[in-house]
Amino acid sequence: MESSTVQSTRKIKRTQTGIVGLDEALNGGMPESTICVVSGGPGSGKTMLSCEFLYKGAVQFNETGIYVSLGERRDDFFQNALNFGWDFAALEKKGQFGFVDLSYESLVNFWISPQGNDYTYESEVNEGIQQTNPLNSEGSYYTIYQNFINQVMDMIKTLDAKRVVIDPINSLTLIFPSDFHRRREFLRIFNILRESKCTTLLLSELAEDKRFTVEEFIASGVIRLSYKNSRDIMSRRLVIQKMRGTPFNEKILSMRITTNGIELIGETLGFE
Amino acid sequence: MESSTVQSTRKIKRTQTGIVGLDEALNGGMPESTICVVSGGPGSGKTMLSCEFLYKGAVQFNETGIYVSLGERRDDFFQNALNFGWDFAALEKKGQFGFVDLSYESLVNFWISPQGNDYTYESEVNEGIQQTNPLNSEGSYYTIYQNFINQVMDMIKTLDAKRVVIDPINSLTLIFPSDFHRRREFLRIFNILRESKCTTLLLSELAEDKRFTVEEFIASGVIRLSYKNSRDIMSRRLVIQKMRGTPFNEKILSMRITTNGIELIGETLGFE
Amino acid sequence: MESSTVQSTRKIKRTQTGIVGLDEALNGGMPESTICVVSGGPGSGKTMLSCEFLYKGAVQFNETGIYVSLGERRDDFFQNALNFGWDFAALEKKGQFGFVDLSYESLVNFWISPQGNDYTYESEVNEGIQQTNPLNSEGSYYTIYQNFINQVMDMIKTLDAKRVVIDPINSLTLIFPSDFHRRREFLRIFNILRESKCTTLLLSELAEDKRFTVEEFIASGVIRLSYKNSRDIMSRRLVIQKMRGTPFNEKILSMRITTNGIELIGETLGFE
Amino acid sequence: MESSTVQSTRKIKRTQTGIVGLDEALNGGMPESTICVVSGGPGSGKTMLSCEFLYKGAVQFNETGIYVSLGERRDDFFQNALNFGWDFAALEKKGQFGFVDLSYESLVNFWISPQGNDYTYESEVNEGIQQTNPLNSEGSYYTIYQNFINQVMDMIKTLDAKRVVIDPINSLTLIFPSDFHRRREFLRIFNILRESKCTTLLLSELAEDKRFTVEEFIASGVIRLSYKNSRDIMSRRLVIQKMRGTPFNEKILSMRITTNGIELIGETLGFE
Amino acid sequence: MESSTVQSTRKIKRTQTGIVGLDEALNGGMPESTICVVSGGPGSGKTMLSCEFLYKGAVQFNETGIYVSLGERRDDFFQNALNFGWDFAALEKKGQFGFVDLSYESLVNFWISPQGNDYTYESEVNEGIQQTNPLNSEGSYYTIYQNFINQVMDMIKTLDAKRVVIDPINSLTLIFPSDFHRRREFLRIFNILRESKCTTLLLSELAEDKRFTVEEFIASGVIRLSYKNSRDIMSRRLVIQKMRGTPFNEKILSMRITTNGIELIGETLGFE
Amino acid sequence: MESSTVQSTRKIKRTQTGIVGLDEALNGGMPESTICVVSGGPGSGKTMLSCEFLYKGAVQFNETGIYVSLGERRDDFFQNALNFGWDFAALEKKGQFGFVDLSYESLVNFWISPQGNDYTYESEVNEGIQQTNPLNSEGSYYTIYQNFINQVMDMIKTLDAKRVVIDPINSLTLIFPSDFHRRREFLRIFNILRESKCTTLLLSELAEDKRFTVEEFIASGVIRLSYKNSRDIMSRRLVIQKMRGTPFNEKILSMRITTNGIELIGETLGFE
Repeated sequence: MESSTVQSTRKIKRTQTGIVGLDEALNGGMPESTICVVSGGPGSGKTMLSCEFLYKGAVQFNETGIYVSLGERRDDFFQNALNFGWDFAALEKKGQFGFVDLSYESLVNFWISPQGNDYTYESEVNEGIQQTNPLNSEGSYYTIYQNFINQVMDMIKTLDAKRVVIDPINSLTLIFPSDFHRRREFLRIFNILRESKCTTLLLSELAEDKRFTVEEFIASGVIRLSYKNSRDIMSRRLVIQKMRGTPFNEKILSMRITTNGIELIGETLGFE
Repeated sequence: MESSTVQSTRKIKRTQTGIVGLDEALNGGMPESTICVVSGGPGSGKTMLSCEFLYKGAVQFNETGIYVSLGERRDDFFQNALNFGWDFAALEKKGQFGFVDLSYESLVNFWISPQGNDYTYESEVNEGIQQTNPLNSEGSYYTIYQNFINQVMDMIKTLDAKRVVIDPINSLTLIFPSDFHRRREFLRIFNILRESKCTTLLLSELAEDKRFTVEEFIASGVIRLSYKNSRDIMSRRLVIQKMRGTPFNEKILSMRITTNGIELIGETLGFE
Repeated sequence: MESSTVQSTRKIKRTQTGIVGLDEALNGGMPESTICVVSGGPGSGKTMLSCEFLYKGAVQFNETGIYVSLGERRDDFFQNALNFGWDFAALEKKGQFGFVDLSYESLVNFWISPQGNDYTYESEVNEGIQQTNPLNSEGSYYTIYQNFINQVMDMIKTLDAKRVVIDPINSLTLIFPSDFHRRREFLRIFNILRESKCTTLLLSELAEDKRFTVEEFIASGVIRLSYKNSRDIMSRRLVIQKMRGTPFNEKILSMRITTNGIELIGETLGFE
Repeated sequence: MESSTVQSTRKIKRTQTGIVGLDEALNGGMPESTICVVSGGPGSGKTMLSCEFLYKGAVQFNETGIYVSLGERRDDFFQNALNFGWDFAALEKKGQFGFVDLSYESLVNFWISPQGNDYTYESEVNEGIQQTNPLNSEGSYYTIYQNFINQVMDMIKTLDAKRVVIDPINSLTLIFPSDFHRRREFLRIFNILRESKCTTLLLSELAEDKRFTVEEFIASGVIRLSYKNSRDIMSRRLVIQKMRGTPFNEKILSMRITTNGIELIGETLGFE
Repeated sequence: MESSTVQSTRKIKRTQTGIVGLDEALNGGMPESTICVVSGGPGSGKTMLSCEFLYKGAVQFNETGIYVSLGERRDDFFQNALNFGWDFAALEKKGQFGFVDLSYESLVNFWISPQGNDYTYESEVNEGIQQTNPLNSEGSYYTIYQNFINQVMDMIKTLDAKRVVIDPINSLTLIFPSDFHRRREFLRIFNILRESKCTTLLLSELAEDKRFTVEEFIASGVIRLSYKNSRDIMSRRLVIQKMRGTPFNEKILSMRITTNGIELIGETLGFE
Repeated sequence: MESSTVQSTRKIKRTQTGIVGLDEALNGGMPESTICVVSGGPGSGKTMLSCEFLYKGAVQFNETGIYVSLGERRDDFFQNALNFGWDFAALEKKGQFGFVDLSYESLVNFWISPQGNDYTYESEVNEGIQQTNPLNSEGSYYTIYQNFINQVMDMIKTLDAKRVVIDPINSLTLIFPSDFHRRREFLRIFNILRESKCTTLLLSELAEDKRFTVEEFIASGVIRLSYKNSRDIMSRRLVIQKMRGTPFNEKILSMRITTNGIELIGETLGFE
């Protein structure tokens, strides 16, 4: 690589992850406004990577971040992060962190019942379920999805956030009635997030590690994590599958989870 | 790993399994309130592991446990456990164990017929079966699922239980009309169980060992068991795929079933 | 394994198979009332194993057995068994064997036409076939399945049978309109058979040898047979995948079919 | 194997195939009345094996055979066989062979149009196609299938045939509206053929060689042929997967097609 | 192989392909009237092989051929062939070649709109699409398919053609409403082509190279081409999977595309 | 290869890609009017290859190109290209480049709402979604697809473009109601593009690298890119799967992404 072009690429604004070895592998960090899918199986470290991204963002780089939970409860999130010494409650008080709670308690009110009470279940019983996806029978997924976007964007504006994590996007995928809608709606939210200048991690639960998802194709970055049997040993791996706008390390990187967070291991973590 | 952080993680409340080698591999046990999916094929040792978890819980750690059976009959459960010297009948008398019987005899009354008689079959005959899942045609799965949750929570409160086993969750999965409901309802019961401070094992029948299920993604712990042909020898393995809130041994562990229960084998079972 | 616990497990009542090597591998036989799925491809030896189980049961252990055929004709069954010197006709006369004929001639009358005549076909022609599974269009599978259970239980009571073979359960599976019914109805018949104290073999045709079926998960025993290409040689294998209530040999066992029946081969067939 | 039992099995009536090496591998031939599925991919030799079975049957063993074609035309069958020096036309004149023509010309009249004219197509156009399988929309597959059975049985009785080939059974499979009907109807025709004392080969087109079909499970014999890439060399194999009522060679046998017909190759072709 | 029988097979009429090495591998060529499926992935050489078959047929063996295009445009066909020095335009003028244009421009008029104008699209818009396959909603595929057959047969008769190529048959497959129709209609056209004494190549696009198609089973010949990664090198292979009525080379043959056409490479290309 | 024929093939008009090594591998470039599918997973380099194709086309070969975006936003496209020193904005001003914006903002107006306002969502809510693909319920995909073609062709004519990139064609695929339409409509647009004499790259997102798509079969060229784990190292590969009208390098080519663009690496990149 010629030094002149490297310099030109170094001029772009970057979002540093703060994760040991990852910024080196990204040639300094993700380009600002990157939408990056982080995918992997259960226990592969997706949530931990995104927590560290938000915590280091606030503490080391003074960038406010928000965590949009489509599954985990607020209390569990804060408690699990504490195990690594990451005190998000303290950050929240200082206005450096926001938690958008779309976990079950809120989902049941928000997604299904605009009235916010438990009787939606009863109404399902009375009306019967005519279609596999209840959203279809209630008219459209659109109201729900638009509300989701509004909540996320409101929090971003309120806190002037620069970093966003949505965990997991599979919960969103379930509300789209077809692949056509899935592609269209992900393109829409990706563009909204890019215009906000936020660097975003989208966590994706990956049932198998061979197929790619539509989100991975339309995102500007893809990082794949794995934790699995490799020659009778369980091992952790991280691969940068795609990162638009920057050179990056194209090797398969070994990953370790310590009580301080994630470490990428290797002699040369920088791109070559 | 630095000793200071290890100490901090040791301060969390843990639920010891009492299984030889497993608590070492979990750095002292599962964090309290963990929802852990235990998955594997037939004969992989799921039920045995959960029995030992409940029995040792009562006898060694003085914690009451309940077993929610969605398949096996009460008598069979007690008899099979006796083969390992685990006398759950004695524990039950002392209030240290509860058996929630959602096996066939109760299912046929509970799931299908709110009136509790056998004529539900007849009514199916008369009315015909309009849809693949009969629950759809009867209005909704909601009444059934809510009753299931109520029964489990009542037993937990009555006995002040700290440990719960649900065996198998596949029976639940069959009553959900879509993947959307499956994710939503598992998130709901997971939260209810966490709030009760119970440490819970969810047994999952795994037809193939490659794909992950939605339950494994949303649970805080995943343990995978296997009993299968590996280089022309049948062997037992245990892998901790995920365990939030604690370091754990990331190796593939050999497992043996003796007449005393389960043993994990290996030189260093603790995390590293 | 400690000798004290081994002794305790030896006290349970066992059903010896009489098959060379199999009882050793089962630590003395299957626990009484075991429901054991025997699965394998065509030619793997399922029917032969179950014949020998019934014949040896009557001749060596004085236990009456019944064979519930959901496919093979009565005459073919008796003739094929004779090739191995097993004279079931003689046993039948002495009241030591019963054949429940649910083969085609009876199925066509029993399953489809309660009136017991061939005109059901004609009625199908006249009415047309509205659904893939004709049982659905006739109201319910329930009448058929309940009649099946009644016939089996009547024969068990009449002969005071201790051993039951149902061959193959795939024929039953085809009449269930959903996986929900399949699990529920197998749980029901399993419990009925257990209460009758019969030890039962359920023969299962296995199209592929990788996936497990719901019957294998809910049964108390699973034995898998194979006859296939292994490194360019056809070989027979038997694996005990699961057997509740007893220790068993966890090795892959070589199997041979001789004119005397089945032989398991190996230096140490007992459990270890 | 003890010699006494071998002698007893030799007493059964056998149908010799006349194919070089196959009768040895079958310990003298197939037991009379065997229904044997011969399965394999295109070019694996199914049709050739069945032609030789019929030709040698007539010439060497004086047994009349019939070929039921569900695809190939009469002229093509006779011509292809002539390449191997097998003159079926001569046999037919002597009453030693019968060809049941259910190839396209007859199918189009027989299956679709009872009136025997081309206007059935027009009527499809006018009425539209309401369902994927046209047989459903015309009432039932039953009339067609019963006519098929009648034609086959009439030819068997007329010629006093002892050998039957049906090529391919996949054409039949397509007319059954469900797996339930497929199992039931194959059980029915298998029993009718057994009662006629005919030894029957059912040719089955096998898209993949891993899965077993229901016909292979319910037949009394299964022979699998393959012609495929094995370590970068195309090779022909024959495996006897199942043969009730006789010991047989359980090895993978090499197969060669010469201008004289099929040859199985190997030092010891007999059973061991 | 004995020389006497080889001589007898040499007497059959053969259609020489003119392709270097292929006629040797076919023991002199395909038997006259063979219907041969040529299948493979994109770039495997199917179209080139069939072009050479037609061109050499006209120039070397004085046999007129026709190319039935169900995709490629007339101009592209002529241009691509010119790259190999094959001037089909010159042959067409001499009456030695015919191009049946069922490419898009003709398809859109012929298949969808009997009126031959673009407004069929509009009518789809107005009427809506009730079914996945528009042919169903317009009554029947029959008119379309019969017109296709008529066009092909008219060209054959007009030119007294001896060679036919249909490229690709996948376009036909898409118009059949079920597997039942697919088998029936391919049997019908195969018989029509055989009666015309034409030797026919049917080009089949093969998405994967493992499964066989129904056309491969009912054709009298199958040639499979591949161009793919084999041990990290791209290589071309040709395998004769089936060829009724002649011995053939059963080896995997290496294939090379030169600017003169196709070459099969190997020391002994003849059958053995 | 004989030199005379090589000369004749060199006479065809070629479109040079300008990519280091690719034109050599293509024997001088793609034949003019080639429709070439470029397929690969996320991060495999599809978009970069097509950008370089357009940029070098304008700068080095003075051929105007257009980029039809069915996903990426205009700004992102220009920005990402700038990282490699490719200034498309400057080209656009000079009339050497055109960007057809069918990204989300335009899609939402164009595809769904002919009125061009956001209320289409609302109307979906009010009317409900009756079918999986909303295009079906609105009458037909035809209007949308025809508008797409018109926009592309207008830009081609306006700029007298010689190079076209459509990224990705998967977005188109989602609007076709069946495989029948998919084949028909791709044949239609392919012919329109060929008549315009444009050389076209169609970018295809490939979920798995084993199956071929219908577009790859009907295109005149196919280039497959991969970026994946090969023996525990991530590596980039480029394979020319098909290229009508020219000899090409049939090897698996190593590919590198530098800050100057794509480089194919190897000693002999030319065809042999």
